[in-house]
Amino acid sequence: MTLTVRATILQTPEPGRLEVKEDQLISVDDHGQIVTVAPFDTANDRSPDVVLPANSVLLPGLIDTHVHAPQWPQLGTGLDLPLDQWLFEYTFPMEARFADLGFARNVWRDMVPTLLGAGTTTAVYYGSIHEPATVALAEACIEHGQRAFVGRVAMDHPEGTPEWYRDPDASSAIDATLRSVQAIEALSGAETLVRPILTPRFIPACTDALLTGIGELAEATGTLVQTHCSENDWEHNYVLDRFGVSDTHALEQFGLVNDHTVLAHGVFLGIDDRQTLIGRGAGVAHCPLSNAYFGDAVFPARQSIEMGLRVGLGTDIAGGPDHSILHNCAQAVNSSRVLQDGVDPSLARDDRGRPDSRIDVTTAFWMATVGGAELLGLPVGLIEVGRAFDAIVIDLESIRWPHIDDWDRTFEKVIRRASDAAIQQVWVDGRDVTPLG
Amino acid sequence: MTLTVRATILQTPEPGRLEVKEDQLISVDDHGQIVTVAPFDTANDRSPDVVLPANSVLLPGLIDTHVHAPQWPQLGTGLDLPLDQWLFEYTFPMEARFADLGFARNVWRDMVPTLLGAGTTTAVYYGSIHEPATVALAEACIEHGQRAFVGRVAMDHPEGTPEWYRDPDASSAIDATLRSVQAIEALSGAETLVRPILTPRFIPACTDALLTGIGELAEATGTLVQTHCSENDWEHNYVLDRFGVSDTHALEQFGLVNDHTVLAHGVFLGIDDRQTLIGRGAGVAHCPLSNAYFGDAVFPARQSIEMGLRVGLGTDIAGGPDHSILHNCAQAVNSSRVLQDGVDPSLARDDRGRPDSRIDVTTAFWMATVGGAELLGLPVGLIEVGRAFDAIVIDLESIRWPHIDDWDRTFEKVIRRASDAAIQQVWVDGRDVTPLG
Repeated sequence: MTLTVRATILQTPEPGRLEVKEDQLISVDDHGQIVTVAPFDTANDRSPDVVLPANSVLLPGLIDTHVHAPQWPQLGTGLDLPLDQWLFEYTFPMEARFADLGFARNVWRDMVPTLLGAGTTTAVYYGSIHEPATVALAEACIEHGQRAFVGRVAMDHPEGTPEWYRDPDASSAIDATLRSVQAIEALSGAETLVRPILTPRFIPACTDALLTGIGELAEATGTLVQTHCSENDWEHNYVLDRFGVSDTHALEQFGLVNDHTVLAHGVFLGIDDRQTLIGRGAGVAHCPLSNAYFGDAVFPARQSIEMGLRVGLGTDIAGGPDHSILHNCAQAVNSSRVLQDGVDPSLARDDRGRPDSRIDVTTAFWMATVGGAELLGLPVGLIEVGRAFDAIVIDLESIRWPHIDDWDRTFEKVIRRASDAAIQQVWVDGRDVTPLG
Repeated sequence: MTLTVRATILQTPEPGRLEVKEDQLISVDDHGQIVTVAPFDTANDRSPDVVLPANSVLLPGLIDTHVHAPQWPQLGTGLDLPLDQWLFEYTFPMEARFADLGFARNVWRDMVPTLLGAGTTTAVYYGSIHEPATVALAEACIEHGQRAFVGRVAMDHPEGTPEWYRDPDASSAIDATLRSVQAIEALSGAETLVRPILTPRFIPACTDALLTGIGELAEATGTLVQTHCSENDWEHNYVLDRFGVSDTHALEQFGLVNDHTVLAHGVFLGIDDRQTLIGRGAGVAHCPLSNAYFGDAVFPARQSIEMGLRVGLGTDIAGGPDHSILHNCAQAVNSSRVLQDGVDPSLARDDRGRPDSRIDVTTAFWMATVGGAELLGLPVGLIEVGRAFDAIVIDLESIRWPHIDDWDRTFEKVIRRASDAAIQQVWVDGRDVTPLG
C-alpha cells in the first residue's frame, strides 16, 4: 500500500448525478490503482498519509481530450480572425516555430505544469509536424507526471497546408508518424503514462494517400487515432464536396474511425454519423469555447450523450481561449443553455432554439471525467476501486462566499467559480504531481 | 499635485479601437482629477511617485453597471433553477437575510474588496429592501474606496413578491426609498464617491402606486434610476399584458426613463424602445452571462451601440456566475459570436444566426469603461485630462505564455486571460484602493 488519503469525494458516475461520499479512506497500491474506498473508521483506521484540510474536497482528475500543444504561446489571441487567416497567417507560423527544439522545450516546460495545476491529469495532445518537438512533449509529460496521448501531426495536402509547414509527401508523413509512435513508446516511463496517438490533422490538410497510410498504421499497430470532424460549415462541406460523403464516413472509409478514436468538435455530425461512431466506439471531444469562434453552431452534447455517443470535453487550446477544463465545464453548460433558448430576440420563442438541449454542471463534469475516460478507454474518471488514482483537491475556502447549505450547490460553485488557484493538490496514477509555485 | 504615475496606457476611446500610449507621465491633482497625460520626458520629468513595473500596463478602471449586492453569498449557484423558483425559493430568501445588519456587514466586507481587487472601480448596486443594510453598503464602498451607486430596493406587489420579503405598501416603500437616499447623501465622503439610486426592482414586483411614487421622487430629487427592462420573454410579456405597452414605454409613463437611467438586460427591446431610450439619455446594462440563464436570447449589443444607445456592461451578480468584468467582457464577445453564427447545426447557415452582430474585445472593453461612464454620466472610463483617475494595473507576466508581438494581441490576451490575480494595483479618484491580500 503506497498511499492512503482521507477525503470527501464529489464525482459524477452518470450524466446528471452527483455522488457525494463523505469522509472516505482511499487506499492506492504501488501501481497507482485504487484498492479500497470506504468510510473512514476513526476507531480502527490508521492515520492516513494525507488528510484533506477541512473545507477541501477530492474530485477525479480532469481530462482534456483536445489540446494543440504548439498553440500554447498564442492562447487567448487571434480569435477575431476568420478560420482561413487564423490557420495560415497566425497558427501555422506559430506551429512552424517548433522546428526549434529549444523553443519547444521552453513551451512544454511552461504548459505541462500549468495544465496539471489546472487539474488536467490527462491530456490528448496534437503536437506539430516536428518529431523532436513531439517526442519532447511526451518526455515533458512523463517528467511532470501528466497522463497523455501525444501525436505528431501529419499534414501533406498542397492546398490545405502552406509550403513552409507541411509534410513533403504522404510517404514521408507516414514514416515520420511511425517513427514518432515508436519513439514515444520507447520512452522510459511511457508504458503506463504516455501513449502515442495517430494524428492526421484534418481531411482538408491530408491527401488521400496520407489518410490511407495512417488508416493502415492504425490497423497494423492498434494505436489510437485523433483528428477533427465536422467542425464547422466550411470543413463539413469541404469533405462532402471532396468525397461525396460526410466527414465521418470519409474517415471511416480510410480506417480512421475505430474504438476510442477521438474526433474533435463534431458540431455538424448528423444522426447517421453519430450512429456510425457509436457502432465503432469512437466519440467526440466537445470544445464549447472554441466552437463559439470556429464552430458556426453549438454541438448538441445532451442529444449525443443520450444517443450513447462517447463525449469528452476539450479546451481546444488555442482555438479556445481558456486552458481550464473546469472553466470549459461551465462554458459547456452556458452553450447548452443558449442552444436550448436560441439567440435572436426578434424571433418567436418557439422558433429560437432547440428544445431539450440544456445540460447542468453534473453532466458537464461527467464529460470532463467519465466521458473522457470512456472516450479514451482509460481506467480513470472516478475515484473507485480498480481505477487509477487520478485526483485533484479543491479548496472550498477560495470559492467564497461562505459555503452553502448543500453539496449540490457547493459542487455547482466549484464548477462555476473555481480557478486554478483553488486546486491545491494533484495526483496522477497515485503520484503527487502538484506543480510548484 | 498629489500623484504622478509613469505607465503605458491601453484604452478604448471608441468601440472597435484600441488606443495605446506608451510610456506616459500621468499627473493627478488632489481632487483625483487627471491634469496632464504626456509622453514621459527622461531629461526633464522628475521621478514619478509610481513607476509601473516592466511588463505591466495601465487600463481605465472597470465599471459594473448591474450588481445585486445581497446575492453575493449565492454567486455561482442556483442557475439550473427556472426564474420563478430561482427568485421565490432561492434568491428572495437570501435577500431577506439582510434584515440582519451584522450579516450584511460581513458580506459587504468580503464583496467590496473582492470587486475592487477584480478591477471594478465603479459599481451600480441593488441592495435589499432593508435600509440599514443598504446604507451599510454605501458605507463599505466609502470605506474601501469604491465608486458606487447604491439603491435600496422597492418592491410591494402582492403577486410579484413573497409576503415575507416585500414593502408593506407603496407609500411606506416610497418613504423608505427617500430616507435611504437622504441617509446615503448624508454620509461623510459620499459627495464624490457614492451616490444613491432609485431602485424599483422591476415592474412585476411593483404596484402602479409604487412606480408612480418613485417616478415622482426621481422628478423631485434628480436622483438616478435603475430597474430591469425587457429581460426575458416572461417579463417582457408580463408588462405587455399588464399595461398594453412595452416595458420601456410603461416605465417612461411612470417617469422612470430619464437621463442616465440604467435598465438592466434589455434583451427584448424593440427598435422603437431603443429610440425612446436614446431620446431620453437612458441606456442598458448588458449582462451577457446572466442572459445565458435568464435572458432567453442574446442582447444585440453591436446593433444597439451603432444606433447610439448607451450600453454598459454588468455582471448581474448573482444571475450571472462571474464577478469579474474582464471575464464578462470576454463573455460579451462570445455571446455576440453565437448571436451572429446561431446555435442549431440542423439549420441552414443563413437561417441560423443574426448577421452583423459580432463585436471584438475592444468594443467589449469600451462597454466596460467608456460605455458605462456615459451611461452613468461619470467623468471616468478613459485615462485623459479632465477625468477622474480610476485605473488598474495589469501584470502581463501573469497572462503567459510569452508576450506577443503586438499591442492588439496583448490587449486581447488581457481581456480573454487576465484573472483577478493579474490585477496588481487599483486607483479610484486618484486614491490607491488596492485591497490587501
